Amino acid sequence: MKDIDDKDAERHRAKMEKRKAVQDAEVAEKTVEKGLLIVNTGPGKGKTTAAFGLALRMLGHGRRVGVVQFIKGAWHSGEKDAFAAFGDKVVWHTMGEGFTWETQDLKRDIAAAEVAWAKARELMADPSIDLVVLDELNIALRYDYLDLDAVVAELSGRREGLHVVVTGRNAKPLLLDAADLVTEMGSVKHHFSAGVKAQQGIEF
Amino acid sequence: MKDIDDKDAERHRAKMEKRKAVQDAEVAEKTVEKGLLIVNTGPGKGKTTAAFGLALRMLGHGRRVGVVQFIKGAWHSGEKDAFAAFGDKVVWHTMGEGFTWETQDLKRDIAAAEVAWAKARELMADPSIDLVVLDELNIALRYDYLDLDAVVAELSGRREGLHVVVTGRNAKPLLLDAADLVTEMGSVKHHFSAGVKAQQGIEF
Repeated sequence: MKDIDDKDAERHRAKMEKRKAVQDAEVAEKTVEKGLLIVNTGPGKGKTTAAFGLALRMLGHGRRVGVVQFIKGAWHSGEKDAFAAFGDKVVWHTMGEGFTWETQDLKRDIAAAEVAWAKARELMADPSIDLVVLDELNIALRYDYLDLDAVVAELSGRREGLHVVVTGRNAKPLLLDAADLVTEMGSVKHHFSAGVKAQQGIEF
Repeated sequence: MKDIDDKDAERHRAKMEKRKAVQDAEVAEKTVEKGLLIVNTGPGKGKTTAAFGLALRMLGHGRRVGVVQFIKGAWHSGEKDAFAAFGDKVVWHTMGEGFTWETQDLKRDIAAAEVAWAKARELMADPSIDLVVLDELNIALRYDYLDLDAVVAELSGRREGLHVVVTGRNAKPLLLDAADLVTEMGSVKHHFSAGVKAQQGIEF
């Protein structure tokens, strides 16, 4: 162990005592409980993984979770398999058709987005579900596959106590206005730039 | 469904065809497989939840995961309970003493950090483990509870194929230099500012 003299120790104690007082005061100020509209956006990694981490936290408390994936792909199969361990505590719906640049068919994409949104509304209306993850909904909104005003109105009018997480790049400003919590994942450094490929357990 | 005329549909198809060509070329360029050193930092939410989301993804592929929590608290109990569903596929170690501003005891904090780091080294050396999450290691480094050079050298020299995720605000530049993937979680909007308290399933 490092050498710590009594002065260091006392300085640390005094600093941490102040820090604790600030922390306690901040906690005491916060009294509201509400279902949150959470948006994870930005170009960095972790938007979807953080949403699924939150789902896991909910499951750890014995709560039920719904997931709608608006953009399909092989990418999230790891999580999907893992969530199977929680049986009917997780309701999972993946939209039919793969990435938008894979289908190249606008009408089919819109029809699929509409089916996924109908499923999302169904999960949001189910009182046994405490958290709904709308994975990559931002992509569907960005390409105008769904009506932005209608979607934001529905999210804002969600039943009391329901938490909703929306993920995907380029979140629309109207959605951000309606959100309680917005996190922007920024890419500081990315291994793809160094020629590293997508790997099992990391990207999918 | 919205009215889509043939021109819209064709424009979309042509755009997505180009997008797909770019995407396919990018994927073809990337050929390296390696165990990544991943850092989730920044003031926003999602650093720990994204790390646990990644752990879940690994578990979904039947891989084993190790977790060391350098800063204890009630905060992550939800995840811990959820990971119990995966039995011995998850090895979990929580450092003893609570938040640094709770203990107010520098010597005890350093001793606890050293025990946690020894556990981290043990997990990194275990060939049955594919991902090690070092949750809030950045906090221990920031307060100089551990020797930065020694920690970064050990992380850089990790065995081939091992992925390590380090979380926490204020990641040290030396660690960022050594990392393959760095994501900065930025706080765009936070419900605590609106007086909302920490809630079960969201913050802990």
